Amino acid sequence: MIVVMKVGCSQGEIGGVIKRIEESGLKTHVSQGVDHWVIGVLGQTFPELHDTLELLPGVEEVIPISKPYKLASREFHPQDTIVKVNDITIGGDEIVVMAGPCAVESEEQLLATAQAVRAVGANVLRGGAFKARTSPYQFRGLGERGLKMLAEAGKETGMPVVTEVMAPSDVELVAEYADILQVGARNMQNFILLDEVGKLKKPVMLKRGLSATIQEWLLAAEYILVQGNEQLILCERGIRTFETYTRNTMDISAIPIIKKVSHLPIIADPSHATGKWYLVAPLALAAVAAGASGLMIEVHPNPDLALADGPQSLTFEEFRRLMSQLPPVAQAMNKKLATSGVEVKS
Amino acid sequence: MIVVMKVGCSQGEIGGVIKRIEESGLKTHVSQGVDHWVIGVLGQTFPELHDTLELLPGVEEVIPISKPYKLASREFHPQDTIVKVNDITIGGDEIVVMAGPCAVESEEQLLATAQAVRAVGANVLRGGAFKARTSPYQFRGLGERGLKMLAEAGKETGMPVVTEVMAPSDVELVAEYADILQVGARNMQNFILLDEVGKLKKPVMLKRGLSATIQEWLLAAEYILVQGNEQLILCERGIRTFETYTRNTMDISAIPIIKKVSHLPIIADPSHATGKWYLVAPLALAAVAAGASGLMIEVHPNPDLALADGPQSLTFEEFRRLMSQLPPVAQAMNKKLATSGVEVKS
Amino acid sequence: MIVVMKVGCSQGEIGGVIKRIEESGLKTHVSQGVDHWVIGVLGQTFPELHDTLELLPGVEEVIPISKPYKLASREFHPQDTIVKVNDITIGGDEIVVMAGPCAVESEEQLLATAQAVRAVGANVLRGGAFKARTSPYQFRGLGERGLKMLAEAGKETGMPVVTEVMAPSDVELVAEYADILQVGARNMQNFILLDEVGKLKKPVMLKRGLSATIQEWLLAAEYILVQGNEQLILCERGIRTFETYTRNTMDISAIPIIKKVSHLPIIADPSHATGKWYLVAPLALAAVAAGASGLMIEVHPNPDLALADGPQSLTFEEFRRLMSQLPPVAQAMNKKLATSGVEVKS
Amino acid sequence: MIVVMKVGCSQGEIGGVIKRIEESGLKTHVSQGVDHWVIGVLGQTFPELHDTLELLPGVEEVIPISKPYKLASREFHPQDTIVKVNDITIGGDEIVVMAGPCAVESEEQLLATAQAVRAVGANVLRGGAFKARTSPYQFRGLGERGLKMLAEAGKETGMPVVTEVMAPSDVELVAEYADILQVGARNMQNFILLDEVGKLKKPVMLKRGLSATIQEWLLAAEYILVQGNEQLILCERGIRTFETYTRNTMDISAIPIIKKVSHLPIIADPSHATGKWYLVAPLALAAVAAGASGLMIEVHPNPDLALADGPQSLTFEEFRRLMSQLPPVAQAMNKKLATSGVEVKS
Repeated sequence: MIVVMKVGCSQGEIGGVIKRIEESGLKTHVSQGVDHWVIGVLGQTFPELHDTLELLPGVEEVIPISKPYKLASREFHPQDTIVKVNDITIGGDEIVVMAGPCAVESEEQLLATAQAVRAVGANVLRGGAFKARTSPYQFRGLGERGLKMLAEAGKETGMPVVTEVMAPSDVELVAEYADILQVGARNMQNFILLDEVGKLKKPVMLKRGLSATIQEWLLAAEYILVQGNEQLILCERGIRTFETYTRNTMDISAIPIIKKVSHLPIIADPSHATGKWYLVAPLALAAVAAGASGLMIEVHPNPDLALADGPQSLTFEEFRRLMSQLPPVAQAMNKKLATSGVEVKS
Repeated sequence: MIVVMKVGCSQGEIGGVIKRIEESGLKTHVSQGVDHWVIGVLGQTFPELHDTLELLPGVEEVIPISKPYKLASREFHPQDTIVKVNDITIGGDEIVVMAGPCAVESEEQLLATAQAVRAVGANVLRGGAFKARTSPYQFRGLGERGLKMLAEAGKETGMPVVTEVMAPSDVELVAEYADILQVGARNMQNFILLDEVGKLKKPVMLKRGLSATIQEWLLAAEYILVQGNEQLILCERGIRTFETYTRNTMDISAIPIIKKVSHLPIIADPSHATGKWYLVAPLALAAVAAGASGLMIEVHPNPDLALADGPQSLTFEEFRRLMSQLPPVAQAMNKKLATSGVEVKS
Repeated sequence: MIVVMKVGCSQGEIGGVIKRIEESGLKTHVSQGVDHWVIGVLGQTFPELHDTLELLPGVEEVIPISKPYKLASREFHPQDTIVKVNDITIGGDEIVVMAGPCAVESEEQLLATAQAVRAVGANVLRGGAFKARTSPYQFRGLGERGLKMLAEAGKETGMPVVTEVMAPSDVELVAEYADILQVGARNMQNFILLDEVGKLKKPVMLKRGLSATIQEWLLAAEYILVQGNEQLILCERGIRTFETYTRNTMDISAIPIIKKVSHLPIIADPSHATGKWYLVAPLALAAVAAGASGLMIEVHPNPDLALADGPQSLTFEEFRRLMSQLPPVAQAMNKKLATSGVEVKS
Repeated sequence: MIVVMKVGCSQGEIGGVIKRIEESGLKTHVSQGVDHWVIGVLGQTFPELHDTLELLPGVEEVIPISKPYKLASREFHPQDTIVKVNDITIGGDEIVVMAGPCAVESEEQLLATAQAVRAVGANVLRGGAFKARTSPYQFRGLGERGLKMLAEAGKETGMPVVTEVMAPSDVELVAEYADILQVGARNMQNFILLDEVGKLKKPVMLKRGLSATIQEWLLAAEYILVQGNEQLILCERGIRTFETYTRNTMDISAIPIIKKVSHLPIIADPSHATGKWYLVAPLALAAVAAGASGLMIEVHPNPDLALADGPQSLTFEEFRRLMSQLPPVAQAMNKKLATSGVEVKS
């Protein structure tokens, strides 16, 4: 932590800052620049100290040096984290494809979709039972009934399932049915929910918030890691910008950045990032080319009849086409599509 | 709802759209523009229809006409909502000032602050017992102990109290102690929490999310209203933009916009909007000049020792100065500072 | 400038950084933090050094300490700059009101507007002769003919005039007719234009770019100041955010921030900030309450017939009403509306 | 254009809107929805009409139906535009790679870079002679001397050259030396410059503005097209968002969107989009995977000694590695790297 003093500050003000730092059990290191005196803080600092020093007389600015997250950072955990779900690995050489409908609507819809995506190479089945919807007048999901259908369709088709949990009090219930629990973008800073999924022994997928910086996202990850759950996957799904053509703007650079500053695996969700089905395939390919460890893709038998997010869902045929375009791009990145997965029951 | 067809679409495609609309029990109205055929949808539409039509062959765009919120809109509720808390009214001719520390830290800190802000005209005491913090290593509040201290300090100084509730399962507990329950910016789209506070018979204050459009904010309000709780106050507290000088950018225009499109009262929180104490007073005055019904201001006996948000907290003296600047601005708006409030116990 | 080294960097890497700094004729100051070695750079740094050091092996981050602007900063120029236009002062105790049509359309339209705004207290006449328009199919202004009409109307009504200059090659021409030259938001980083108006001996008004940070805005101001022109006024006119209800989001906090970090006067343009006439008055009052030294307001005899920006223009009656609301707010800020100005010819 | 009337508007107000539309020589089409009367406008509308109608009594909203750009749109020009520069084609099956230093600094620096990038497959040489710099204290380029060096180095290595033009009065000069004229991000709405390059008979590359929507970008393109120059290339280079880790956020979705709504070729500049050399390669690969027709990459012999943009420049070795990763991704997209180009003089 470095304290920059105001131009023309007094010696008394410099002394006041030093005194406050030393009262916190830390050491200081003072130097005089051309315009500014600068006081370095030596030792393990803490968030409140930043605020304290910023308010002392004569202080221009307090600049943090250490990153505020530790467990999520590559500095303190250099090797890649690889999350295992059955015999699929996320974060290594495999590209995992999670696919399925936005919302679980019925057994028929879900099973048909599961079979269709499985047949062309998807590894994980997605489907929402608890839905976060902008308006109270939209379909909010089937709840536990949906969870059951999802687990059943996963078993039928030999795929682990991923689904969103929205309420801290539902974590236990959702964990009974799901192989991966998703924390959605709107809940990225629902800290009580983060605490709860952090106590699980199951993989969690944490989506980036619509307006979350990469640092805030990693601090949200830190909430989960600090509770002891290290089976954590990040998912870029678009951020909010001034551009209105797409629902959100997919921050493609977040993929190589996360790989640089963190050890956690990162996948991409081009369906939510764009909100338009015809942008899903190009952005899925781009995400893999940028180094993503996987994709989450919305697929629906009849997007025009979907109860949620129809406009961004691929048809079976469109999904099949995307799956045929992925292998050469994966190969160019020295990766391959995950082919493992529990065998379909016969 | 209006469906714009692509340039050069076929008659079959137009027929397909009409058929689908009529299957939903609605009527259509077709007209030919210079470049585009346009199909108007007559009757009560629903969110899913928008998505359905957007995916039909030949469709360029689907444009909604009606606003997606009803109960929150002035169209359907022309007269101003006035929320009453004890004998204070929010949304009428009075300017209400909510003040207090960011976090409840101790009885002494809280009571000293309560007395200081009450003495110069604050009407409602604020203080956080459950704190939403970006990092898991920051102070997260005293919980129920903090609630008790808050209620006690409110009683001592004759002020109703406002405090944040973060978990759906805490709503009942918080409602025991608080006169107004605050839903924070990070929880604006925590829909389960919205459902819960919507079932209360107590005033709720809904802060705008960091990246929420005004329409999304009003849809979040709709979640609460639709559950039956009409004692709802909105609070502008800054949105996330590219500017890094301030923590957030206070959207001053949100104040007159909300007053135009909604009947709900709106107040402003310049402390969180800016993150810097020396910007609080100018933005507080600006908010009142723009038509806000009140302010929420962070005050601390020793901002440099605060456990949360010190840099944006006013000292007692700075708050006193702000309170002396408010009356002429309020008067210029044909309003006056709320002077009511339960008498201080003697 | 401070260089933060990577966790676990080598002594050779630290030596390499020190060597490079010393080769630039500067001194260093090395200290060891808990995780990071930190190297302070002592002496007058330059922009290229930042980039150089960032690329050396072992470097995590380079943090600037000094602000990149000098002439625009209050540190190096503590007293307020007051710009004089005839007998009006901008930046002192007076609130100056610039008003007029978006575009000069005809002698009648302009003179009627000039007389109407003058009658109720406007001090400066605005009107565009060269118009920056998003689409090539929109009205782009009358050019020199418009400049002549503007100067004439100013003389008739005893008001100095402000108008936009868009091309470096037009600066001389516009300066013949205008009392204040405006650099528009889209040209805030048209550096060649900034150079040219910097060579003038006339007041310049520099609008903030749609996506300019406050620091970039002050660096654009620096371009003008470094050429020798110190008669410079800044104008906040809204920034681009995700909110679509308004054309832009007026950054009300920019007003007190500029007053703190710079000595230059700042005014506000609520017409362009919002794009909607019914938001102009509340935001104008808010700007004055936040400390603005003036306002720029679009007024048109018949907004529904305006060739540009009709929806954000006030009618004569709406402007009159705003002018009647301003004095009490100005007074609350210990200011008064500028009443000076050349007498109207009789 | 569709006019939505307010809930409860009067028949007189509806009549007023119809009258105004008919006075403009257009026809109307009135229908009654559940809440709102809706008036369709039939015939060729114009921008001013939108503003006029929005201000009439009883009008809630005016919704445009037609896109505001014509010449840039795929609707009116369905086949892809292919820009030819010597024997390179941009917009077809080839991926063109433009590479070179940010700024031309010296003959040695430029020629060494040109030879290095040419040797591993670059097709076009880039280099700035007129530089747009945020601060007046930064290196602003060598001007005409730099143009000469650039043209010379291009001739030496058999590559056409691309360079930025900043001032309308420099267009003729720059066109003497450059094969492609670049309009930079900060000048995307410098409409006078757009007019000038539109009069050329040479290819122009138009970068997206930092805060430009896709529609505004295409309207800027329209300025050039309407002057008669159809040899136009678009270049995505990142937009301004709240994320501060990167200099800008590359909007990867802009690539497939432009390909859908326009016929113009689009390339990507990951160097400026990110500002960090280690993000350039992943984003370059992502852009090609998303469908870009080419790349613009900054390369420097010694990035740590560069006079501009060192931190985002690749070394020769890093560029060579990127060029070896591109072919398989290009091939996955059914494209190949452009191999044509004038032979190097022997």
